[in-house]
Formats: sequence, structure tokens, C-alpha cells
Amino acid sequence: MSLAASIHAKAVELGRKIVEMTTASGSGHPSSALSIVHLTIELMYRQMRWNPSDPWDLNSDRLVLSEGHAVPVVYAAYADLGGAVGLSPERSRALSTEELTALREAASVLDGHPNPAEGFPFFDAATGSLGMGLSVAAGLALGARLQKSPRHIFVLIGDGESREGQIWEAADFIADHELTNVTAVVNCNGQGQAGYVSKQQSPEALAAKFAAFGWEVFTVDGHDPDVLSSTFQTARNQARPAVLIARTQKGWGVDILLDKSNHGKPVPASQLGEAMANLDATAAKFAPATQPLADRPSAGAESRHAKPVDITVAPFEEGLRAAGLSGALDARKLATRRGYGAALLALGQANPAVVALDADVSNSTFSEMFAAACPERFFECKIAEQNMISTAVGLAAAGYVPFASSFAKFLSRAYDQVELATITRANIKIVGSHSGISLAADGPSQMSLPDVAFFRSLAGVTAGGSPLCVSFQPADAVAAYHMTALMARHHGMCYMRTHRPDVAFLYDANATFEVGGSAVLTEGDAVAVISNGFMIHVCRNVVDRLAQQGIRCRLVDAYSYPLRGDAILAAGDACHGRYVCVEDNYGGGLGSAVSEIVAQRGGGRVFRLTCGIVPKSGRSAEDLLKMTGLAEHDIENGIRTML
Amino acid sequence: MSLAASIHAKAVELGRKIVEMTTASGSGHPSSALSIVHLTIELMYRQMRWNPSDPWDLNSDRLVLSEGHAVPVVYAAYADLGGAVGLSPERSRALSTEELTALREAASVLDGHPNPAEGFPFFDAATGSLGMGLSVAAGLALGARLQKSPRHIFVLIGDGESREGQIWEAADFIADHELTNVTAVVNCNGQGQAGYVSKQQSPEALAAKFAAFGWEVFTVDGHDPDVLSSTFQTARNQARPAVLIARTQKGWGVDILLDKSNHGKPVPASQLGEAMANLDATAAKFAPATQPLADRPSAGAESRHAKPVDITVAPFEEGLRAAGLSGALDARKLATRRGYGAALLALGQANPAVVALDADVSNSTFSEMFAAACPERFFECKIAEQNMISTAVGLAAAGYVPFASSFAKFLSRAYDQVELATITRANIKIVGSHSGISLAADGPSQMSLPDVAFFRSLAGVTAGGSPLCVSFQPADAVAAYHMTALMARHHGMCYMRTHRPDVAFLYDANATFEVGGSAVLTEGDAVAVISNGFMIHVCRNVVDRLAQQGIRCRLVDAYSYPLRGDAILAAGDACHGRYVCVEDNYGGGLGSAVSEIVAQRGGGRVFRLTCGIVPKSGRSAEDLLKMTGLAEHDIENGIRTML
Repeated sequence: MSLAASIHAKAVELGRKIVEMTTASGSGHPSSALSIVHLTIELMYRQMRWNPSDPWDLNSDRLVLSEGHAVPVVYAAYADLGGAVGLSPERSRALSTEELTALREAASVLDGHPNPAEGFPFFDAATGSLGMGLSVAAGLALGARLQKSPRHIFVLIGDGESREGQIWEAADFIADHELTNVTAVVNCNGQGQAGYVSKQQSPEALAAKFAAFGWEVFTVDGHDPDVLSSTFQTARNQARPAVLIARTQKGWGVDILLDKSNHGKPVPASQLGEAMANLDATAAKFAPATQPLADRPSAGAESRHAKPVDITVAPFEEGLRAAGLSGALDARKLATRRGYGAALLALGQANPAVVALDADVSNSTFSEMFAAACPERFFECKIAEQNMISTAVGLAAAGYVPFASSFAKFLSRAYDQVELATITRANIKIVGSHSGISLAADGPSQMSLPDVAFFRSLAGVTAGGSPLCVSFQPADAVAAYHMTALMARHHGMCYMRTHRPDVAFLYDANATFEVGGSAVLTEGDAVAVISNGFMIHVCRNVVDRLAQQGIRCRLVDAYSYPLRGDAILAAGDACHGRYVCVEDNYGGGLGSAVSEIVAQRGGGRVFRLTCGIVPKSGRSAEDLLKMTGLAEHDIENGIRTML
Repeated sequence: MSLAASIHAKAVELGRKIVEMTTASGSGHPSSALSIVHLTIELMYRQMRWNPSDPWDLNSDRLVLSEGHAVPVVYAAYADLGGAVGLSPERSRALSTEELTALREAASVLDGHPNPAEGFPFFDAATGSLGMGLSVAAGLALGARLQKSPRHIFVLIGDGESREGQIWEAADFIADHELTNVTAVVNCNGQGQAGYVSKQQSPEALAAKFAAFGWEVFTVDGHDPDVLSSTFQTARNQARPAVLIARTQKGWGVDILLDKSNHGKPVPASQLGEAMANLDATAAKFAPATQPLADRPSAGAESRHAKPVDITVAPFEEGLRAAGLSGALDARKLATRRGYGAALLALGQANPAVVALDADVSNSTFSEMFAAACPERFFECKIAEQNMISTAVGLAAAGYVPFASSFAKFLSRAYDQVELATITRANIKIVGSHSGISLAADGPSQMSLPDVAFFRSLAGVTAGGSPLCVSFQPADAVAAYHMTALMARHHGMCYMRTHRPDVAFLYDANATFEVGGSAVLTEGDAVAVISNGFMIHVCRNVVDRLAQQGIRCRLVDAYSYPLRGDAILAAGDACHGRYVCVEDNYGGGLGSAVSEIVAQRGGGRVFRLTCGIVPKSGRSAEDLLKMTGLAEHDIENGIRTML
């Protein structure tokens, strides 16, 4: 009983910090934080094997706070334990309790929601947009298994949060992959933001759901130290993944925060005294603590940090032969998605840090080549793209270089997860196949059309001197092969967009490519025709035909965002400032990028050809080009308009 | 037994069509279509009360084919029944069986996946990106309940598809709202695209899951006509939503399609004879049909079509008073999100067709005002944004004008659903609050930053002479109020982006706004400063200060996409072609739109200020402006650079 008394005393102590720091901040979620105060103490002070001075240790246990808004309790505990903050082990310091009231200040590492990239390395991923944490935990758990690390991953999820479908995608994935090194906890305080949590997310309903998803379920009082202690121990040693359904009280210990109207509201400064008196009264309900809370276990094994990864890859022709695609070397024709498959295979064989994920379409994206060669590093996510992306974030946090592929269209299912991954600065590689209108027959529900605009928006942001997300659109399989290697070597998020049809080789096997780069494929001075990906081939036909008529256009393959302006301006300057941009997607992509470059300096004219209508099915890529105004004669008309 | 024989005979007959049309098309999914052939017959010929010549009837039963790739079986049945195709009842015709082999042709109404906007009105929504159909059905069911219509909604879902989290969001929603007018069917053929379906999606696992989600579950043989007939009848009359877990065979009836390697592959023309022989052999297994399949029930009630909706709304000041916000009229200051709340309330009170949905943040988006006044037309979706958007699509198909709101950041969870809604041309209104960096304290996981680029990409596409999606960014509460009304009046998808902070009124109460519009707020000839939303207020401070120094800038509120070029060019022409664009989001938005306009004509220079780094928490909007390079002095520097 004395241990319980010590934990209650610590809960009240941290409760004070939670109230103080959120009041000082003028915002934050003290009531949510208080509802998990015992859970957090049990995990951070008792269950987790870790060393607060070394949160970078890949062998230590981890906590993923999926309901990120409850973070003040973690900050309070972390400061109490002297946890290290900073961007690297070499430049770290212990968090002090005095700093807690700087919560949410611009200069503070204590962000409004978990945000490791701002210097809080206890967390592996930014959370706050709900429902992603269990997937991140799955990625960490896969990484631990690959590394034969003893680490165990704990995840705290809100009851209202468990309405997000991604939670159930992750529950399936963790069960499929038998990740018994994960323990989930659902914090059932019954209060949402705008109202009470639905009966569909009651403790009973959640217990039944997790059981149906194949998990071991333990329903507990989330404020009972003894029950929590024994249940976490039991949960850790199950043959199936385990979840604690914890009944808790939102605003625990502070009467004036108990009502559901308090979601996301700090105690007003004028009521701080009353809140502290509430906590004193709460403390008085328990036996006095007779011993400090000091028996925290240390890390379970020798400390181990993630190391920079050197990436090597076979030359293009060798890679294609190894992939059984030597016929393409003779035909000089191959789909870019197959070029990706061959490169991923080559990367996988040469680099144990490279892992791959796919969402039941590996025989379309061609990640299946990697899956066959490196089955232990290939993770089939089934038809659940959100979980795939957040799982990739967890794998990256464990030191791996994950490639996640699906149809580019279906990846839009995970744009929220992609955004959170950018906040984490996760080193993940996203590859979307069957992009744009050349998919043709399957119709618009399978075509990615606003994806270029979305990823280009991320490409324009700078993070640590590098683009937040680099994107590539290869025009042939040679380019796809080299860009895949380039993505593996580039530290940070990358997106590559491949196409379905076979296309001719344009580049030499040893061609080089770079972030933000472009290449002049045809010299000319009439009009600068800027395109990329599949459309390069359509433009090339037009440019070649016009050349026979004496109109020599310059064809530029602008294959990467953020697109560097110098080469684009040089191309336009050589062509009287005339630009025609051609892309197989909705606007906001290439034509927009070129317009920005040209309008920033002034002195050119840009004609943009994009997919300007909603396409439908057609039998061939040519059908779609005609339908959407991107056929060869449309491009020729565009060029002639500029002349 | 003779009924069963008739159904098997019909199954073989439709099987022939399925094989023929996909072979003719050269693509399509015959094996998936064959796995639901008996289910489709039971629904379309026997269970559904509907009239094939009037698929627009709001009182008739509906089928949502969530696993859209299986659509050839529906096309075959629909042609057999003489179902109407076309874009309106006035311009419709019966689909003929001869047309089936035009599947996926550019000129055919038979798109690769369900696509009502191309002239197949049997469907209410485009499907094909998986996991959305149950949510669409929920929206149709809500609409039917509101209209006191007897219609019943059937949904066909794939087993592999049920891995998508959205399925479980919809299952929760349907249970929460007790939508017993929905019957779901999961087609358990055990085969995915790249491999077998996981044990997590086995019939047993799915039965347990749906039971845990509060549904009545019936497990059936999906090829047994008698069992299907009786079970659908039973399922229709439950006190809880019901689901049939149907065990089926992928490629039923065609031996050469049974292997799992056949996903998405038509029978090669060279094997067509063999496939037909397979079907003959299948037919021979059953007793010969002694009666035709003719007892299809007709529609359950008088036919009723959706009517164009006239929208009226109270004037701004009256609307604000009705919302209890008259204090703002005196202070002349209010957050745009409150302006939205007041307008939604006014719309709801005047227009029974207006409905609203929110995702547990109605007290932040201010849809709570509508919820309090029109509770029967407000649908709380809890923390499940994907389901919310697809449910709104179903409501729109039932003739309602749905407004769906959440934090703009959290709406990115549903961008795939938004894209499918554009293919449907769904008349839905999406409102994202707390957008951009002015949210400040909560940090980047709660800020929408690439949203402008994403929605602008959709805005640039034309659909039926109108933009595919219109977006608005109001600079004050007056604008937010009028734009909300404008969205209700505009037929088609709209997106509005509101902000958290209170801001001063800039517009007169009776100001007018238009799609693609902009407004000159301050005259001047030095530099055209183009901005919108919250940033207008920051820019105005700079413009006013510079005016005192004799530098007279023109301040333009470019509040809507697709942004019309004429007014923007006029502003620049009045300012020596000098533009400075300011926005509180990542690139690809306003600066990009202005650059496109300027570069298209030539002859101006555009300096873009965007949020160029990943923000973090700060205590105030001012902290964030400084952090991201959007403070007043940054804007002033930008202007001076242009001079």
C-alpha cells in the first residue's frame, strides 16, 4: 500500500505542475493530462526500461502519446526525472521543472503537442492529429523485432480518439504481425471536446472491439496504482498484443476541471488557488507517502543509437538484370514503376536498413520484387494506407529507411499522416504508382490528380536547410531507378510518382539526377517546353515533329520539386521568354512552379496545359490525352500560340 | 427450388456478359464481379424496391457498391433490367445489353468504376477508392429518415476492403444513429490483389467485429439463392443495423478465373471459349430454370425526385443578433469562424434542406449554433473525418445541402474522400476552422498549411461549366457570413477556410462577394499587395503605415479560388506590375495563383511571402508571424524590395 501512496502523492505533485504550466501558457489541456496522470507515472517511473538522460537509446522502451493534447503530464514527469532535451545527444541538457511554465512559448522545447523535431526526443513522432499513435508504435515494434531489441512500446490512446478508423487499421496490422512488444492503453474518461464520448467508445464497447480484433483485453481502473502495476506486467507477457481499457476521470484531482465543458481549457489564473486547494484535498484522501518513488527500472540492454546509413546500389543495367528485366535493356522500354521495383530490390539487397511497405498492390507498384528477395523487411499493410504511412514513420524512428508504396491515388488517403510525418521530419520515402491520366481504363477514382499540388506545397518549405519533402517524377525507367537510389540517400521525406505505361528510355544508364533538378532533352530556341513524367514522351513527339517544320523547341524534363529556378530561367531566356508547361494532373504543379519562377524575376510568358476536367475511363492513354486537352495537337496549339 | 434454379441461370447469363465485356474492354475485374453475382441478382431483381426506368426516385431503395471494381455485374444486370442511363430523367434512355462491351470506352456511360456523373444514375456516388461506401449509405439513410422515405440502402463491401478504417468509422456512425434502414453485405471471397485476405478479415473475424460494433450479423453462403433471400428479409427487420457476412468464390462459375492471380485481369480473348465452356459446365450443375426471374418488387412508394433548392438567409446584422452576437456589431470585431456559425444558423432556420455535420469540435467551428437550433438536421460524427465527408456525399445525393466542419487540419484526413466527392460532383460544403499559423499555441499538428494548395488544385478544374471546387477565405466575419450563404447557393463543392482569432470588420454589412472574386480594400499605385483571410489584417497595418510615409500600396483581398485574373492584372497594372502576395500557409496557394495570372500574360513581377518553415507553438499569432517570416516588417521588406 505504501507504493500506492507514493504514486498518489506523485500524481498530486504532477497535477500541480500540469495546472500551473497550462495556466501560465494560457492554453493546453490540463483535464486530459490529469486523466492519465497515474497511467503516465506507472509507465514512465515504473514500467518502462529506459534512461531519462538517453532518450535516443534504441534499446530502451518507448511511449507513444497518441492523444497528443494530454502532453503536459509527460512534460511534468520528464522534468521530474531530469529527462534530456535537445536535437542530439551531443547537444542535450536535462529539462528542469522551472521550464515547465514556458509551455508553448516560441523558444521552448515544450510544444503544444508532442514534437520531437523541436527538441523533445522522448517522443518518436509528432502526434496531435488523432488516431496515428498506434501505427507509429507498430513501426517502432517492427524495428525492434528486426534489431532483436528488447524494447517494448507503450501507446496511450483517447477513448474518443479510438473513433478514428486508423486505430483499427493499426489494431489489424499489429495482430497480423503478432507484435506482442506493443501494449496499448485506451484512456476512457468518457468526455470528448464537444460532448460526451459515444457509447460506441465506451469501455465495454472498446473491450469487445479489441477482443474481436484479436487482442488480449484488460479492463482496469486507470487511477489505481496496484491494479495498473500488476496488469501492465501481465499484459507484457501475452502471446497476443495486449490493451488496457482504463477507466479514468478527466480532470482527476481538480474538482473545477471535472465538468466536460473544460476540454482544452486551462484553469484561469484567478482560480489557481482553488485548483491547488482541490489537489490538496485530493492528496488528503490517500495515505501519506512513506517512501519516494525511486525504483524506476533502467534500460533493458546496452544503449544503442541510430547511426547514419550509407546507401549503396548496383548500377542500372546490373540492377535490371538482377530483377529479371534484361529484356527491357534490349527493348529500351520499361514502365517507371518497374524501374522503381528494380531499384528497390537493388537497394534492399545492398542495404539492410532499407525496408518496404505496401498496401495490397505490390504486384502493381512492383515492390513485390523486394518482398520476394527480402521478406523479413517487407511489411504487407493490406488495404489501409493511413496505417502504412504512420507505421513507416515508426520504422524511420527506429533507424530504418522505409519505402511505402501504393497507387498514388490511394496515398491521398494518408495526407494527414504525411503532414504529421513532415512535422516529425521523418525519413520516409513515399512512392505512388499509376499516377495521372495515363492510367486510362480504370477511371478517375484510381488516378492521382491533385497529388502534385499537395506534395509541391510541402517541397517549398525549408526544414533544417533542406526541403521538407522532395518529390520526383521520372520520365523513364532509368530515371526512376536512379531517383529511387537518390531518395534512399537523401535524408528526409521524399515522394516519387510513377506511371503505368511502358515508356522508352530517354536517359543513358549512367545519367545523374539531383534534388530540384531538370534536364534539357532537346535543344532549341523557339519555345521552352517544360514537362516531366509520362508527358515528356507526348511532348517529345510534338517537339520532334515541329523540328521537322523548322520550329526548334527546347524540351526540358523538370523532374523534381522544389524546382530550381536557374535552369528554368536559362531555358526560357534561350527561347525569347516563351514557356509551355505540360502535366498530366490538375493545376498547382509544374505550370505553377514555372510561373512562380518566371513571375518572380519578370520577363517571360507561361502557357500552362494541365488536366482541366475530371477525366473518365478510356481504353488508352491516348483516349485520355484527347479527353483532357493534353493530346499532341493540344500541345502543338499551345506552342503555336506562344510563337 | 425453382426460384433458386432461375437465379442460378441468371447468374450464369450475367456471368457471360461479365466475361465478354471485360474481355472486350481489355481490363476490368471479372473475378470480383462473379463473386457477387448472386448477391447482386438477389438485390437488384428481388430485394430492392425500385423502378429501373427511374433511378432518380428518392423513395426507391438504393445500392452502394463500395467495392467499385466489381461494377461489371451491376452493369450486366442493369442492362438486363433496362435501367435508365443519362444525366437527367428528361434526357435518359434504357441501357442495352449490346452496349455492355463498350465498357470503359471514352464515350460510354459504363465507367471503370461507379461514376454517376458520367451518366449512370443508379449510383449515388463515385466509388473505387475503397472503404467509402458504407459512409455514403449512412448519408443516404439519414436523408431517407429526414424525408420519412421508406427507402432502404444496401451496401456491398469487399472483405479486403474492410481493412480500411473508414468502414469502422461508418459502422460506429450507423450504430450511433440507429440507421436500421441500412443493410451491409461483406463479400468474403478471401482473395485480395497481391495476396490472400488476412485472417483479420476472415468471415469469422468480420462477424465478431461487426457484433462488437453493435450490429446484427448473419453469416451466409453468398451463392445460395434461398439463404440470401430469407436472410435479406430477416436482416431488413432488425432493431439494429444488420450485416450479411457472405462467403463467396472469386471468379465463381469460371474455372480459369478461380486462382487468386486473376485479380483485375480479364479473360484473354484466346481463352474466351474456355471461359464460356466453364460457365456452361457451371449451369449444368444446377436444375434447369423452369420460370423466368420476374417477380421484382416495384418502388415502395410514390416516385419523388430531388428538386433545385432555393436558399434564403437573413441579412448579416439580423443573423448576428439571432446568433446572440450583437455585441460584435458594436465592437465591429469577430472571428470568421463565428461569422460562419451565425450564417449556418441563419441558413438552417430558413432552409430545411440545409444540414450540418461536425467531428466533435462544433464548439470550436461554431456549428454548435446550428446544432442547438436544428438538432434533427445536425449530425455529430465524432472524431472520424473520413466518414463525415462521405456521409455528407450521401446526404447531398438525397437532395440536402450539407455543411461539414472541423479544424481545417483535420479535414486533410479526408482528402481522398474529398477527391471522390469531386468525381461525384457532390454538392457538399466543407468548412475548416483554425486554419493557418494564427492558431499559434496548439502547434503545427493542428494547423492547416498545405490545404490551400490542395483545394486550389481542385478549383482550377472545370466541371459542367463551373469550377470543380470553389474555395473561400474570408477576411472578416461579414465576409464569412456572406460566403457561407454563397456556398449554400452555389451548386457544387465548396471549401471555406476560417481562422481562430477575432478580427476587425473590414466590410459593410451588405457587401457582396462572388466566386473567384477579389476586392480592393485600399487604393494605391506603389505595389499591389495581394492577400486574404487573417493575413489581410497584418498587411493592412503595413499598408497604412507605409501610406503615412507616402508609399501608397494597393491592398487587394483575393478571397476566392479559382481566382479571376482580370481584377488581379488591373491591380498590378495600376502599380507598375509590382505584386507582393502574402499568405499564412505553405506555398502553392495565393502567390502561386497570382504568379500564374501574371506569367500567363507577361509583364509583371511577383514576390511571394508564405509560411516557409514548419512552425511550432508560440503564445500568440504575432509569435508565429515572426517565427515564419510573415511579420509586418517582413511584409514591409517585401514591398520595399519591389520598389
